[in-house]
Amino acid sequence: MAEHQLDPGKIHFKWNNALDPALRIAPGDVVHCWTQEVTNGQIGPDSKAEEIPTVDFDQIYPLAGPIHVDGAEPGDALSVEILSLEPDDWGWNGIIPGLGLLSDDFGDPYIRHWDLSDGQTTRLDDRAVIPLQPFCGTMGVAPAEPGEHFNLPPGNFGGNVDIRHLNEGARLLLPVQVPGALFSAGDCHAVQGDGEVCVTGLECPMSFSLRFGLEKGAGLASPTFYTHGSPLSRHDTEAGYFATTGVGPDLMENAKNSVRRMIDWLGKEHGLSPEDAYLLCSLAGDLKISEIVDAPNWLVSFYMPLGIFRR
Amino acid sequence: MAEHQLDPGKIHFKWNNALDPALRIAPGDVVHCWTQEVTNGQIGPDSKAEEIPTVDFDQIYPLAGPIHVDGAEPGDALSVEILSLEPDDWGWNGIIPGLGLLSDDFGDPYIRHWDLSDGQTTRLDDRAVIPLQPFCGTMGVAPAEPGEHFNLPPGNFGGNVDIRHLNEGARLLLPVQVPGALFSAGDCHAVQGDGEVCVTGLECPMSFSLRFGLEKGAGLASPTFYTHGSPLSRHDTEAGYFATTGVGPDLMENAKNSVRRMIDWLGKEHGLSPEDAYLLCSLAGDLKISEIVDAPNWLVSFYMPLGIFRR
Repeated sequence: MAEHQLDPGKIHFKWNNALDPALRIAPGDVVHCWTQEVTNGQIGPDSKAEEIPTVDFDQIYPLAGPIHVDGAEPGDALSVEILSLEPDDWGWNGIIPGLGLLSDDFGDPYIRHWDLSDGQTTRLDDRAVIPLQPFCGTMGVAPAEPGEHFNLPPGNFGGNVDIRHLNEGARLLLPVQVPGALFSAGDCHAVQGDGEVCVTGLECPMSFSLRFGLEKGAGLASPTFYTHGSPLSRHDTEAGYFATTGVGPDLMENAKNSVRRMIDWLGKEHGLSPEDAYLLCSLAGDLKISEIVDAPNWLVSFYMPLGIFRR
Repeated sequence: MAEHQLDPGKIHFKWNNALDPALRIAPGDVVHCWTQEVTNGQIGPDSKAEEIPTVDFDQIYPLAGPIHVDGAEPGDALSVEILSLEPDDWGWNGIIPGLGLLSDDFGDPYIRHWDLSDGQTTRLDDRAVIPLQPFCGTMGVAPAEPGEHFNLPPGNFGGNVDIRHLNEGARLLLPVQVPGALFSAGDCHAVQGDGEVCVTGLECPMSFSLRFGLEKGAGLASPTFYTHGSPLSRHDTEAGYFATTGVGPDLMENAKNSVRRMIDWLGKEHGLSPEDAYLLCSLAGDLKISEIVDAPNWLVSFYMPLGIFRR
């Protein structure tokens, strides 16, 4: 079993099963990568909110890869073991007009920069301390369908899945679509809640190491994964959560309402502006479907860990 | 502050703000209740699956109450502190034709009886041990709209919210709709996952004690709550989770697909029949919205704690 360092210059911006492999490996091999943050450096530590609408969307999601895994065939599962995830010292998150769960409510660009240099936590001024829980927002294999595919939406091939529990120690299984699998990853987040409600996690450059394997003929329909599923911090079950709800016949509307009500609460209880509250919701709040069977009304809950306010 | 025992005969089957109070209390008071399981005894420890379709839906959700809280006015929040929850020794869950997230896939009635006598866990044969985590599936105030309302769907007044984390130590806040609030509760579950996917939790008779309070003029739009948000057991983050996904433009379809894929996995990995797997999903699996912003495809994940298989 070999270890490989993937050249950080080997990136691509679209899913496309005709791309030449950046690297060829065997099952069992480990690959070490580093990727730029989601805009490929268009947003940097000095960027202002006004720069967000100028971001060139043809240059977002710089993905390390594609990695060709010998012997991978359609119908197999590609196993991706997440060995390590190390954010650089800086990250950002913000509001991108036109995107995000509450794009109707938040029309202006907004940005926050985050100091990740202690490697464990990051601070929202003196108001909240958020434990880091890094993962790659995007991990996928090349889709079966030929041609270029925009890399924002995820699919059964994986991609921009934004699953916050794909942390160190987790293992992702992806349904191989084309021979060699052609795996790519990037879009790293230092932390994010279930939902990624404002459309940005804590976006940052990151080094990560993955071990690849094959489960022959697994016949997966979509990604599956094993995870420790850790809460945001060990203090969560001690400090507990405050949760809001949205109740009604549409899960999407319920999710929006639950987040709107959390933004209201963060303003009243913690003095956060709507913009900062929305950002905090995206970084630390979790969307859960509490009930999806009591027709005609479903209930979506949005949980905020109270430990982040214990400074 | 007084303590009250609510007469177990004081139940009702519909939400209706014209009902006479079963009890009048002051803010700060504690009320001790006991309710029958969700069918009000139509299903008992000896019931067979064939009895499920004969259940009279006019007699489901026997709710303790209504409890009139002095001084409660529309616009206030009724605070409900959950002091204790003690299931009786027996419970059931099952498949009710026509109801449940996968009602298209499961057309026949099915039932499992569960031994709750040790007070801590319950067993699915020798295949899984599920820690108990009791709560009242239904807690609500009388809706503002006059007349009788079926008690299956929840609403902004609360009701059949089926929020699995309203366990001992949690505190629920409900938006008062009518003077006196007219609170009722029941539909007790010894354990249930986020989603309650097969439409039954672990349905059981239960004793519970609640402390009531008022937050004047809180102006809630829908229920909110404080909770420890505990995982199913302390072993969860050690044993971890296996999770399936559903990816696409419709949250409901994604939820269905994620549960279908978990049922497949429970069959392959743990030898469960589809019916038992569906029941286990309802009792122990959690639906999460991992990503709701990467248009046009959202991602719903369904997490199964692996600790339940460590026997």
